[in-house]
Amino acid sequence: MNRIRLNLEKRSSNSYDICIGTDLPDRMGLIMAKNNWASRYVIVTDDRVGALYGESMLGILRGLSLVVDRIDIPAGEKSKRIETCIGIAERLIDLGADRTSALIALGGGVVGDITGFVASMFMRGIPYIQMPTTLVAQIDSAIGGKTGIDLEGGKNLLGAFHQPKAVFIDLAFLKTLDDREFSNGLAEIVKYGLIEDPSLLDLLETEGQALRKRDPALLEKIVLRACQIKKGIVEIDDTEKGLRRVLNFGHTLGHAVEAASGYGLSHGEAVAIGMAASLRLSEKMGYLKSGDRERIDTLIESLGLPRRMPAALDPDDLLRRIGRDKKKTGDRVPFVLIRKPGMPFMNGGVPEAMLRDTMGELRG
Amino acid sequence: MNRIRLNLEKRSSNSYDICIGTDLPDRMGLIMAKNNWASRYVIVTDDRVGALYGESMLGILRGLSLVVDRIDIPAGEKSKRIETCIGIAERLIDLGADRTSALIALGGGVVGDITGFVASMFMRGIPYIQMPTTLVAQIDSAIGGKTGIDLEGGKNLLGAFHQPKAVFIDLAFLKTLDDREFSNGLAEIVKYGLIEDPSLLDLLETEGQALRKRDPALLEKIVLRACQIKKGIVEIDDTEKGLRRVLNFGHTLGHAVEAASGYGLSHGEAVAIGMAASLRLSEKMGYLKSGDRERIDTLIESLGLPRRMPAALDPDDLLRRIGRDKKKTGDRVPFVLIRKPGMPFMNGGVPEAMLRDTMGELRG
Repeated sequence: MNRIRLNLEKRSSNSYDICIGTDLPDRMGLIMAKNNWASRYVIVTDDRVGALYGESMLGILRGLSLVVDRIDIPAGEKSKRIETCIGIAERLIDLGADRTSALIALGGGVVGDITGFVASMFMRGIPYIQMPTTLVAQIDSAIGGKTGIDLEGGKNLLGAFHQPKAVFIDLAFLKTLDDREFSNGLAEIVKYGLIEDPSLLDLLETEGQALRKRDPALLEKIVLRACQIKKGIVEIDDTEKGLRRVLNFGHTLGHAVEAASGYGLSHGEAVAIGMAASLRLSEKMGYLKSGDRERIDTLIESLGLPRRMPAALDPDDLLRRIGRDKKKTGDRVPFVLIRKPGMPFMNGGVPEAMLRDTMGELRG
Repeated sequence: MNRIRLNLEKRSSNSYDICIGTDLPDRMGLIMAKNNWASRYVIVTDDRVGALYGESMLGILRGLSLVVDRIDIPAGEKSKRIETCIGIAERLIDLGADRTSALIALGGGVVGDITGFVASMFMRGIPYIQMPTTLVAQIDSAIGGKTGIDLEGGKNLLGAFHQPKAVFIDLAFLKTLDDREFSNGLAEIVKYGLIEDPSLLDLLETEGQALRKRDPALLEKIVLRACQIKKGIVEIDDTEKGLRRVLNFGHTLGHAVEAASGYGLSHGEAVAIGMAASLRLSEKMGYLKSGDRERIDTLIESLGLPRRMPAALDPDDLLRRIGRDKKKTGDRVPFVLIRKPGMPFMNGGVPEAMLRDTMGELRG
């Protein structure tokens, strides 16, 4: 047998800036022009965000002599399917896009995931920029290059790690966010508080009123801190093999609940339920104090998020879905638990009976 | 505006071995077991190769206590569509595959492209192994991590660069290859001769009889040399931004001809026509001697490959398809030409009228 070694040892740089502020489109346009990431751009957005901001974005970027087009997809999780990606790719071909083109994801997590995934595949990979418009996307999904779509069998089963060239977080978008979508973001901020920085929990508890009024200074503070946490975790573990898994706190069950509800529950609502369950499991296994668990339960409720599971959800169905979750490794289903706020750890596997009991207690 | 830098500078190693010999499945199984690439494997093959080799491969690998399943897809280029990938991904879910699973591509270029692309996407990326069964796949498509599928608008418009963990080239597969498929591979070997190593052309010219008998020693020599050329080019340019483009010699027009024929022409046949055209263009532009062009024309014919385009193909349609080829950059359509065998170069762009004339001369 002959053996030829193909050597591909290399240094790569996928570093990028996360810019946070207000009225960013002009700055973004200048940075795009300066960095010369692409010969032309295509904004991918959904029909809801597109109706609100699409024309003004096109106007601003074209005003800077950038070549920009726009593709709208239907709003909502149901768009996170391969058919949407194929539709975008075919439109890109029709628009004359090529390897020197780049995409701009203008929207929430669904738009970001789809746009990033299309960018990872189109002609085997083109650059893209994230311009997240929801709180969840701004502090979580737009950062770190995780992209993906859902299959019948579950969420995010197909995807790619494809880092954006930059993330532009315009806090002005948060003004027009509906309350439910805003609460979705708060669920992820609670998660950051629990897995990394308990001072975020204090802030959410003490600044309740400013939060409800969406006070710009408070939001800037929270978003900035959350982005720093996310970037730190991504830097250490950019393809989610180790530490980054703590980002799944509340998400193992959360994804199952979200899917089992037929996406009637939003991602943040499902994650809130998932976190409530993880806190109970952490308590039951003797890691977390009751007082800490109760404190976070109260906070979750005060943020307008659910803790209890819809009675219609079948525990067996949820268990089956967890078994199919993409985070499972071999035959074990790892679970992220916490010892106290700010101290998450990977548990070797929660006993199925305990999980079943916990789901029962949280029902209805 | 606040600015957070997300730092992702890293060293990565995607190096791998290309193993060339006969009766490799046993060796492959041992190497798989030793390297522990995955907790379980799924062979992806087509119904033709699967019928010939599927059971014996399963038997050998299972005999080494590896956990292995098998998925068959319909043979042929028409399988190179996203629907096939989704079907495989859903079967993987049903089989219980997860992030610790790996795929084995057992088949020709289509199987390799699809399997590699699914591996790049499944749960955001799992490992895969190439076990190419056709001459084209063994010397070209299985090496270098280029994967992809076709869209309505053209070939390989979606895909990923995803390197395999290893390539196992079993020369025994070449015994059962039909003549047309064998000639396809010879077209790519002519290409290597033209872009890198003219001694391959000498070999094809002088060893015609041994070649027709598929003499194992000759095939090993040719495959080994071709793999060395391919690996050298991939090492220098693993995402096809520069040098690797010379691998597209004959392919700019070849892809267009292949698609325009409704895939009635095989890839190798289309590439042979594309090379014949590129040789003529090189000659017309004053780079290539007539004698060299005539010599290669003769060789192409002696290998059972076509030089002339089916009269039914419309030059305007082909020009349009070339304009849409994924290798186009901005508004220019680069063309790989040669000065003499072994000396390719990127031309700034061939005049459309000259291309049209050349296509006219090669028709019918």
